[in-house]
Amino acid sequence: MTATETLSLGAIEDLAFRALVKAGTSPQNARPLAVATAMTEADGVASHGLAYIPIYAQHVVCGKVDGTAIPILSQPRPAVICADAATGFAHAAIDQGFEQLIPLARDMGIALLAVNNSYNCGVLGVHTRRLAEAGLLGLGFTNAPASIAPSGGATPVVGTNPISIAAPATGTGEHDSAALLIDQSASTIAKSEVMKYAREGRSVPEGWVLDEAGQPTTDPAAGLKGSMVPSGGYKGVGIALLVELLAAAMTGANLGTQASPFSGTAGGPPRTGQVFIAIDPQVSSAGGYADKLRCLVESIHAQEGARLPGDGRNTHRQRAGERGVEVNAALLETVRSLS
Amino acid sequence: MTATETLSLGAIEDLAFRALVKAGTSPQNARPLAVATAMTEADGVASHGLAYIPIYAQHVVCGKVDGTAIPILSQPRPAVICADAATGFAHAAIDQGFEQLIPLARDMGIALLAVNNSYNCGVLGVHTRRLAEAGLLGLGFTNAPASIAPSGGATPVVGTNPISIAAPATGTGEHDSAALLIDQSASTIAKSEVMKYAREGRSVPEGWVLDEAGQPTTDPAAGLKGSMVPSGGYKGVGIALLVELLAAAMTGANLGTQASPFSGTAGGPPRTGQVFIAIDPQVSSAGGYADKLRCLVESIHAQEGARLPGDGRNTHRQRAGERGVEVNAALLETVRSLS
Repeated sequence: MTATETLSLGAIEDLAFRALVKAGTSPQNARPLAVATAMTEADGVASHGLAYIPIYAQHVVCGKVDGTAIPILSQPRPAVICADAATGFAHAAIDQGFEQLIPLARDMGIALLAVNNSYNCGVLGVHTRRLAEAGLLGLGFTNAPASIAPSGGATPVVGTNPISIAAPATGTGEHDSAALLIDQSASTIAKSEVMKYAREGRSVPEGWVLDEAGQPTTDPAAGLKGSMVPSGGYKGVGIALLVELLAAAMTGANLGTQASPFSGTAGGPPRTGQVFIAIDPQVSSAGGYADKLRCLVESIHAQEGARLPGDGRNTHRQRAGERGVEVNAALLETVRSLS
Repeated sequence: MTATETLSLGAIEDLAFRALVKAGTSPQNARPLAVATAMTEADGVASHGLAYIPIYAQHVVCGKVDGTAIPILSQPRPAVICADAATGFAHAAIDQGFEQLIPLARDMGIALLAVNNSYNCGVLGVHTRRLAEAGLLGLGFTNAPASIAPSGGATPVVGTNPISIAAPATGTGEHDSAALLIDQSASTIAKSEVMKYAREGRSVPEGWVLDEAGQPTTDPAAGLKGSMVPSGGYKGVGIALLVELLAAAMTGANLGTQASPFSGTAGGPPRTGQVFIAIDPQVSSAGGYADKLRCLVESIHAQEGARLPGDGRNTHRQRAGERGVEVNAALLETVRSLS
């Protein structure tokens, strides 16, 4: 059994904040990332919570991310906000962008936030959930270093590029909640899982990765040199390309083929991008949005054993708010040594 | 060998137009549908071209679609256009909506068209391509009668709900072209393919459909009573739900569980929905959009055997413009008898 310690969400945020600041991150950049780290642990996505703090700290030190960057915001058109993350953390740029995006989407009916010169934004659904909590339908897209090959090819051209949508329960304003949250990568499995198998010296199941020649393999090291299997074949490639068009070609961020890796210390800032689209869900439904959503959710909950995307994270989050989160003791020791 | 006859795109449009009008469609509703029929044949998607004209004509006669409907347009917010298709053909509502959406997206940077009380919109990519040809990144979403079950369940709750994006080559204005076109359903295979196998009395390959108990089957009839397999498992369900949130819950259209079938004559109008989001791709890339897109396209074309989504349709379309389209002679006889 792995030794764990239970921490409150406040304690997780505080610990993450101190480690980030000690590594050289400015307090205004460390705060949104520390908040997101606590929310990610609350959602039960431990792989992207405190476990990432040592990597973030290392990347501030080696210059893969500028811990003291100041995002530059602009509004080039009435319904579009741009945030140049200036090679800093994505979270500060997204946070400041959302302050403008949310009221703008309410006014305009739809608005877009384009983030470029950015970095790994962590769990995409942590961000779209905030739009839903503000009563908006929140769509999110983020690109990543290339690891998926095109159909018929073997060389990666796009990342595992996730897509997310968070749907507010009522869509009526400030204090809403995410009734349905979808957050999924374009690959069969997350790349971080393959890296975990490689570290542990285990074979991966068939259907996760391909080698450099595009052939199936169960060797995680060969897969990491080769490519990730797209979810549903060419349709997974299609989703990854859709994300690449929005999060990179449209924002001006680096394409997956141009970006430096998210892992390791080499290559300087990845300069990847994010796009968020916020929509007022009441705008064309004549007030029927909440009823339609409830009907959709009930059609799934009515089936024994059926799963609604986001239910797992919602259950985790509620329990985490009440009882805190169990954190791996060895990881906790590492993060505490950094703080 | 199947007997065919070669028709020009103009002749296909004209034939479709006359058959639709003779069935009781108003000329202003028949024209955009006839144009889309010719464009669908040009793209090489014969299953959704002239082959649908007898079904459309039948649906006008039985009242599943109102051939003389007049779409009602409104602009509830500065960046949102709504089109109530009034149980008429989707194409007329989309056409009139695009007349407002395209200039609005150029002004606002992003704009949304929500269509409700609508009908099967045919090939989604035929519509998003038009946004790309106007220099805009075009996203499209349309829902359909329920045929995909949630993960862990066996009763369908969402349709095969396709998603599409069309990317303009330059993004600089009126006379652009679609350099990349993605148009894919949330299921492993289109439902129309399963219906074709059922008509022909053939077994379908494993992995296409599930029976009413949610178990794999190769019997197309059992599959049509059961459900379609989502592409990539729960991720296909996720895409279908994303589309349902936008095209139905947000527009006020019928959910997949509420909609009458697209096939057959029973149940009255399906009242499904479509959403289109148009984005000026230059707005945040500091003019770099066209270069990024070219680099992405070249990374795929540089690999022998690799396929870029949309290349097939573009090649077909060019050839169709020059040499016309081969149409099945028996189908042609049927459509001619209706015109």
